[in-house]
Amino acid sequence: MGYELYYWPTIQGRGEFVRLALEETGESYIDVARNPNKRGGVPTMITFLDGKRVRHPPFAPPFLKSGALLIGQTANILFFLGMRHGLAPRNDAGRLWTHQLQLTIADLVVEIHDTHHPISSGLYFEDQRNEAKRRATDFLQYRAPKFLHYFEHILERSGGRYLLGRRLTYADLSLFQIVEGLRYAFPNAMARLERAIPRVIALHDSVAKRPRIAAYLTSERRIAFNEEGIFRHYQELDTQP
Amino acid sequence: MGYELYYWPTIQGRGEFVRLALEETGESYIDVARNPNKRGGVPTMITFLDGKRVRHPPFAPPFLKSGALLIGQTANILFFLGMRHGLAPRNDAGRLWTHQLQLTIADLVVEIHDTHHPISSGLYFEDQRNEAKRRATDFLQYRAPKFLHYFEHILERSGGRYLLGRRLTYADLSLFQIVEGLRYAFPNAMARLERAIPRVIALHDSVAKRPRIAAYLTSERRIAFNEEGIFRHYQELDTQP
Repeated sequence: MGYELYYWPTIQGRGEFVRLALEETGESYIDVARNPNKRGGVPTMITFLDGKRVRHPPFAPPFLKSGALLIGQTANILFFLGMRHGLAPRNDAGRLWTHQLQLTIADLVVEIHDTHHPISSGLYFEDQRNEAKRRATDFLQYRAPKFLHYFEHILERSGGRYLLGRRLTYADLSLFQIVEGLRYAFPNAMARLERAIPRVIALHDSVAKRPRIAAYLTSERRIAFNEEGIFRHYQELDTQP
Repeated sequence: MGYELYYWPTIQGRGEFVRLALEETGESYIDVARNPNKRGGVPTMITFLDGKRVRHPPFAPPFLKSGALLIGQTANILFFLGMRHGLAPRNDAGRLWTHQLQLTIADLVVEIHDTHHPISSGLYFEDQRNEAKRRATDFLQYRAPKFLHYFEHILERSGGRYLLGRRLTYADLSLFQIVEGLRYAFPNAMARLERAIPRVIALHDSVAKRPRIAAYLTSERRIAFNEEGIFRHYQELDTQP
């Protein structure tokens, strides 16, 4: 029996970090909200959030169903998949380290989202445009370099092309997605930032060439970036750091 | 050999979620940055962040040293302590569920922090006061109720006074701290919000009465809330939702 992924059907968003891991495992899964004929689509997803049907209702998508287990929170889902499919070390120390890196990526994802929604995720971008400009400028000048240089430093000492060395983990797949997303959202700023992070870029390229990931990226299952997701391209936010 | 906790010495901040768990375990620990004579204080903490001394440098405090292990990211540290000291179930399903709740609390913590720093954590509150007012109003009207009602709902169906039922987990200690912090930061708004979350408040009260926690809260080890931490009281942000 395969996995069921529940996430918004028209964006990459946080669900994409899970999709990439699922694709890399090669396991079969249904992206439920995108396949309304199979499991009922978005309405089914919403009933899980209502919490009447399930023992452990998630706060928000994405969440993953695996038999009787329902698991929410992106990093938690990845922890679970990593454990089951060799996308993280087997020993506790390696597992915690992988998860620590993932949680740092999760922190970065929040900051990326807030560049276009610094005041409220319930308001349109247009209603917080001036604040977004200030926040994006700060992000590109201070925060993005701080995070990216951190991962570069981890790669410098990992002894391999991946964050933990020679073996791929789910954190590598997520860092690939960060590079993809930042290139989409801030092509101008990112072109400059990339010069200082050759190992992060090499990791990105290695992940893109993995057979299952390469096949996924050119498939219809990979949703294009757009201005509803976490990584959004607004010219006015893409300033030079 | 006891634990070494590394966190900023003058605030509760994210470190407090770890301090509460350590206190509840009854294990001995050194709060290194607050005890410069014992392990070198803040300068020692900084050298870990530089990453030359350690194999797995954390991105930011808090981090915990346990023998040769160095663990960063609040939720990750709690996962580790929960596993070792019975502050989470032993089976994978229960462990993942506890962690999922903790990660949802972590999301809430980011939103609480951003009520006073919506533009940049590198700027003073005074430099983002107008934006903070907008963000805090949105937070108190929409986001705080959404999170708090979620936890109330989880408690409704847990079958006990704690999030997982009758047994305390680290997520309960963190939810206690959320109530403490929101009461400090937004006394006016929180007085109203509390009416809809009697089970969350009862959980708070139960945690406060646990012998080790009660002793901790009246000790010198508990730093008072102040305007440098995550929960800050600014009268102008404490609007009625």
